[in-house]
Amino acid sequence: MTRVVRVDIAHAPYDILIGKNLLSVADRISSLLPQPRVAIVSNTTVAPLYMQPLVASLEAQGIVCQQIILPDGEKYKTWESLNLIMDALLTERAERKTTLIALGGGVIGDMTGFAAAIYQRGVPFIQIPTTLLAQVDSSVGGKTAINHPLGKNMIGAFYQPRLVLADIDSLSTLPDREFSAGMAEVIKYGLIDDPEFLAWLEVNMDGLMARDEVLLAEAIERCCQNKARIVAADEKETGQRALLNLGHTFGHAIEAGMGYGVWLHGEAVAAGMVLAAYASQALGHLITQDVERVIAILKKTKLPVVSPSLGGAARFKELMAQDKKVDAGRIKFILLRQLGEAYIGELPESAIDSALLAACEADK
Amino acid sequence: MTRVVRVDIAHAPYDILIGKNLLSVADRISSLLPQPRVAIVSNTTVAPLYMQPLVASLEAQGIVCQQIILPDGEKYKTWESLNLIMDALLTERAERKTTLIALGGGVIGDMTGFAAAIYQRGVPFIQIPTTLLAQVDSSVGGKTAINHPLGKNMIGAFYQPRLVLADIDSLSTLPDREFSAGMAEVIKYGLIDDPEFLAWLEVNMDGLMARDEVLLAEAIERCCQNKARIVAADEKETGQRALLNLGHTFGHAIEAGMGYGVWLHGEAVAAGMVLAAYASQALGHLITQDVERVIAILKKTKLPVVSPSLGGAARFKELMAQDKKVDAGRIKFILLRQLGEAYIGELPESAIDSALLAACEADK
Ligand SMILES: NC(=O)c1ccc[n+]([C@@H]2O[C@H](COP(=O)([O-])OP(=O)(O)OC[C@H]3O[C@@H](n4cnc5c(N)ncnc54)[C@H](O)[C@@H]3O)[C@@H](O)[C@H]2O)c1
Ligand SMILES: NC(=O)c1ccc[n+]([C@@H]2O[C@H](COP(=O)([O-])OP(=O)(O)OC[C@H]3O[C@@H](n4cnc5c(N)ncnc54)[C@H](O)[C@@H]3O)[C@@H](O)[C@H]2O)c1
Ligand SMILES: [Zn+2]
Ligand SMILES: [Zn+2]
Repeated sequence: MTRVVRVDIAHAPYDILIGKNLLSVADRISSLLPQPRVAIVSNTTVAPLYMQPLVASLEAQGIVCQQIILPDGEKYKTWESLNLIMDALLTERAERKTTLIALGGGVIGDMTGFAAAIYQRGVPFIQIPTTLLAQVDSSVGGKTAINHPLGKNMIGAFYQPRLVLADIDSLSTLPDREFSAGMAEVIKYGLIDDPEFLAWLEVNMDGLMARDEVLLAEAIERCCQNKARIVAADEKETGQRALLNLGHTFGHAIEAGMGYGVWLHGEAVAAGMVLAAYASQALGHLITQDVERVIAILKKTKLPVVSPSLGGAARFKELMAQDKKVDAGRIKFILLRQLGEAYIGELPESAIDSALLAACEADK
Repeated sequence: MTRVVRVDIAHAPYDILIGKNLLSVADRISSLLPQPRVAIVSNTTVAPLYMQPLVASLEAQGIVCQQIILPDGEKYKTWESLNLIMDALLTERAERKTTLIALGGGVIGDMTGFAAAIYQRGVPFIQIPTTLLAQVDSSVGGKTAINHPLGKNMIGAFYQPRLVLADIDSLSTLPDREFSAGMAEVIKYGLIDDPEFLAWLEVNMDGLMARDEVLLAEAIERCCQNKARIVAADEKETGQRALLNLGHTFGHAIEAGMGYGVWLHGEAVAAGMVLAAYASQALGHLITQDVERVIAILKKTKLPVVSPSLGGAARFKELMAQDKKVDAGRIKFILLRQLGEAYIGELPESAIDSALLAACEADK
């Protein structure tokens, strides 16, 4: 059974399909193409696994496929890789109606989406996310980006795909560590505004970690529904969409401070959500048991719950000040009023210190 | 007297102000800023002339100004220059509400607009065009781009400014050759769909070339009105907006074939419009006198009317095939049904050859 989640963005609504065997049945793709020609962007890890069935099914429908294979890794989410895509498209004379397809995790999805946004000022774009993180989060909502040495995702565009194909089958080859990293974003949805889902996750986490396909499809659908609702209401993140960044201001500092790629994005977000919980406790919103509940579910998924110190609080804050969610020098944090109810607010210096201290002591 | 042209793009309408002394009276800018902070991008030629009065008037209103000065020239309309802008913005921690201001010609405008489109996925943007070409064309309509070795303006975005300030005073320092190049785009509007304006230009070209300020303001306003109307009806160039590319498919081939910067954009467009006229004659639309009228007004502006051969017809066509206006391998040309009535169509190989032959013979 294929599940469908509609993303109701006014100027460009689209569907997310969640199910099995989607990759090798590309008829949903072909019906969307303005010309029978695509360029599929993937990387050296994913292409050997999934490129062939995708290309075979597209070619069977008369679609010409260009393949662009990038090196694998967050550290390649750069200008240079983006340029490799541009070079390849121009060398093959890809046109304004040629559709770009991202086949891979969030890194490939973010870069390919950005490439689609800027190649000839914008060409059609389809997401085929192959990691849990990409299926529940990065492939939905149209945020695209590359990193800059001075900050993560600093250069990019809002650019919506025309279709998202989340094929559960592809998760079977995902390394455990990557699977866990995706679970951080899954749990995030529960914490933001879906306490019922949080409770469901606490009950079903063992089955999810064993990659039970029915439970996985259920969880992915719920995450996509949550994200679609938030994104449809605030595409360009002028308001509530920022809630999706729970744990991310802390998390981005961890990713940057450790050097991109040392901690996985989801791992950094996990430790970041714990810091956000500590900070929310310092503000008097959460009680100890709440924080412990956050830590417990993250531990079940084998995610890190203790942030590295990054060489001290001063450096940590400096790294956070480079985040995009800064207005007139003030950082906006996503905090928890209670579990399942996040809000956007500011954090007094002292609450940041309390959170970092709690993390430091937990590390003892 | 300041003239105002409204660009009625549904999601983001904005004004073009045309007049004198606009640069040093920055109150229209300050009222639009979401935060009292701007980054002004200019180049080594324009900044010494106009940066100081602009900064002075902004600072007098308490606005913090970062200055980013790039090298001057079409050959610097590249990834590398764009990266210099990104580096500077990130080093100074420019935020999502920091407004980018382009102060310069079309090169600075196109690059700064693209930088605004992609810095942190989009920040506000204001155009202060200082060339005739930029005032009548490139600053209006939201096309932004950089060049790629394999094609001009191949990487970019549609991204609208919040305001365009066309200060006639700034044209006083413009070199004659650049002034003429801008005139090519002025004449283009007459040819596309404004025969009355074409006739007005024929009458007033001597005064315009003498840079009579009243005539100039009149012409700039008329061009902006024409462009605003076309752009508002078709922002993303899915249809009629392509008419604005009259002479440009030929022209881009000339620019690329000669090496960017050897021929000015406007010069290439002038020779390109003559080729488009010859081709339209080959199709039986124009008569010899029409083509001569096109050549005559371009000659009055000291623009080249004879295209270089670029090493032969085969190479010329190859260069044209790299244009963005290609669909399933077929190039879309902008042709003339009559003077003042352009249309989008295809050109049989033979008509291209006839046009290139006419240019070749005119060169004898
Ligand atoms: N755009 C958004 O809204 C958004 C949201 C969250 C995260 N992100 C971005 O997503 C990125 C992280 O995404 P990610 O976690 O998917 O990382 P990733 O893309 O690096 O993928 C993780 C690893 O798994 C490999 N892989 C992918 N699919 C596989 C499969 N099916 N089998 C085996 N291996 C597979 C990849 O090659 C890679 O080595 C970050 O750059 C982050 O900034 C973006
Ligand atoms: N975005 C669009 O819709 C659009 C439309 C047409 C052209 N363009 C682009 O615009 C560019 C050409 O623009 P341009 O003709 O303004 O070239 P330009 O920006 O290179 O300016 C021409 C020269 O004049 C100098 N200059 C600028 N203002 C001056 C002044 N007031 N006094 C003295 N010198 C001055 C510049 O430094 C430069 O040396 C091309 O890259 C073309 O692709 C874009
Ligand atoms: Zn995330
Ligand atoms: Zn032009």
